[in-house]
Amino acid sequence: MPPLKDGQIRVRNVYLSLDPTNRIWMQAADSYLPALPLGTVMRGVTLGVVDESRNPAFVPGDMVQGFGGWQEFYSGEAIGWTKLPRIPGVPMTAFIGAMGHIGFTAYLGVMDIAQPKRGETLVVSAAGGAVGSLAGQIGKIVGCRVVGITGSDEKCEWITRELGFDEAINYRKEKVTDGLARTCPNGIDIVFENVGGEILDAALARINVGARIVLCGLIAQYNATTPTPGPYNFAALLLRRATLRAFLVLDFAARFEEAASKIVPWLLSGELKYHIDMVEGLSNAPTALNKLFDGGNRGKLLVKVSEEPKSS
Amino acid sequence: MPPLKDGQIRVRNVYLSLDPTNRIWMQAADSYLPALPLGTVMRGVTLGVVDESRNPAFVPGDMVQGFGGWQEFYSGEAIGWTKLPRIPGVPMTAFIGAMGHIGFTAYLGVMDIAQPKRGETLVVSAAGGAVGSLAGQIGKIVGCRVVGITGSDEKCEWITRELGFDEAINYRKEKVTDGLARTCPNGIDIVFENVGGEILDAALARINVGARIVLCGLIAQYNATTPTPGPYNFAALLLRRATLRAFLVLDFAARFEEAASKIVPWLLSGELKYHIDMVEGLSNAPTALNKLFDGGNRGKLLVKVSEEPKSS
Repeated sequence: MPPLKDGQIRVRNVYLSLDPTNRIWMQAADSYLPALPLGTVMRGVTLGVVDESRNPAFVPGDMVQGFGGWQEFYSGEAIGWTKLPRIPGVPMTAFIGAMGHIGFTAYLGVMDIAQPKRGETLVVSAAGGAVGSLAGQIGKIVGCRVVGITGSDEKCEWITRELGFDEAINYRKEKVTDGLARTCPNGIDIVFENVGGEILDAALARINVGARIVLCGLIAQYNATTPTPGPYNFAALLLRRATLRAFLVLDFAARFEEAASKIVPWLLSGELKYHIDMVEGLSNAPTALNKLFDGGNRGKLLVKVSEEPKSS
Repeated sequence: MPPLKDGQIRVRNVYLSLDPTNRIWMQAADSYLPALPLGTVMRGVTLGVVDESRNPAFVPGDMVQGFGGWQEFYSGEAIGWTKLPRIPGVPMTAFIGAMGHIGFTAYLGVMDIAQPKRGETLVVSAAGGAVGSLAGQIGKIVGCRVVGITGSDEKCEWITRELGFDEAINYRKEKVTDGLARTCPNGIDIVFENVGGEILDAALARINVGARIVLCGLIAQYNATTPTPGPYNFAALLLRRATLRAFLVLDFAARFEEAASKIVPWLLSGELKYHIDMVEGLSNAPTALNKLFDGGNRGKLLVKVSEEPKSS
């Protein structure tokens, strides 16, 4: 490993977050972040432990989060790295899930972008995923009727029985259009959209006047090799005077503290549950990433790169 | 004509407004208003003169606006009819154009939905149309760089030389993608969208982070007989964290007075110009409506149903 320069840190990665947006980062063109040149380390959010520091803000043993990449050790500038708070009862993994960018995405997407009113119907796609499972629970906490769309009976059971969703649709067993007609008799007020494609189309067909579409992801088309049309029911946005708003959680850094102050009590009280889908070993990361696109994932997908320090 | 009941009024229609939304009202399904049954009078906004009144709020001779329909006389309830103010220097036709629902749509679309900042680039489609030509001028008044897309050289000249747009694209002569690359070197911050289809797609390909898409109309697909896909560049909304918001001017009635208070001085000072495309005689209305969809219309399309009263 290279010797550190002044200001730099070395971090031993403990957990690597796998997210659908990883697929966006692999595209040849710039996205909301610059495209990654071939031959460089794959970008990734990690939790780790400071191993060596030539930066006064960090000392060895600090638990940190940052863009540590798909590697065992990160060596470089400390920009973008933050220390993790120690909160009794909140495990380290939570900081890459409910208490990290995933939880903030769900919280800010529901509260800021959707601005839900009590009694409204919220539909969440990829509801068994990391963000979707939290977004639906937050919708319940603020008084919405919540319907989740997932890709397996197991996940449908999990979100309704354990997470408290009102209804679930398994899109592999039931046409989403039929499922939404069954579960949303009064139409849809909010769509928390992670998928796009036919699932978004089916939701748009049932939106109410003034609906809000939180555009969080479009998993269905990240792997497309030919141009993908937008939703056929696009005109429903016009006729129902809907607002569709996309957002990137990184733009909301000023709100993370508020989000955390809400999420921690919900986690500690058990109102907000999360599941970690843990993959052992960095070498399994490329294969595990596919689980985000083939419906195989439930909850937050993490790769365990090395052991947590004993003290955590 | 039927005798009036208590509370009813009879209105002689003077001007009938033709709008792209007329095509939406003709669809078999309900839209933001109920579908019109076959055999009924076609819905339409009119300016007229009260001819007879059994309603204490109206007297014969009053100039009024309402859903007078495609007919010479409206006879019925007074609900939805409003008296026109008399403003020296503002002709009657303005109240169905710049000072009516058209002007309010342009004003509220730009000011409320787009929330423009000085120096931002605003692209307006159907820029030679009633709403588009006003929206672009309002964009200029608030300090935007404004690019209009129209269907003829004549309209391109009109919007740049007379209305003050910075640039114009004739989509029949130049690929819109090329035209936007030529005229929007720094990308697009606001799209005032009246058309949809390939024009919206070309605009989405160039939107900047935080772009606002004001979804005012989708003329391109109102006549479609097969399902029309949404924009192929739909994912640009996600990657650029854009907000797309559709609106119906009728939802903003509480803001009309504010809009009027801004628009009247602009009209009187000549900062805001409008053009009336006048069609003579109700029998020409069905044919004239096509002008809104084949690029033949410039400015506000009106049908003169009968003569203005001498006093106006």
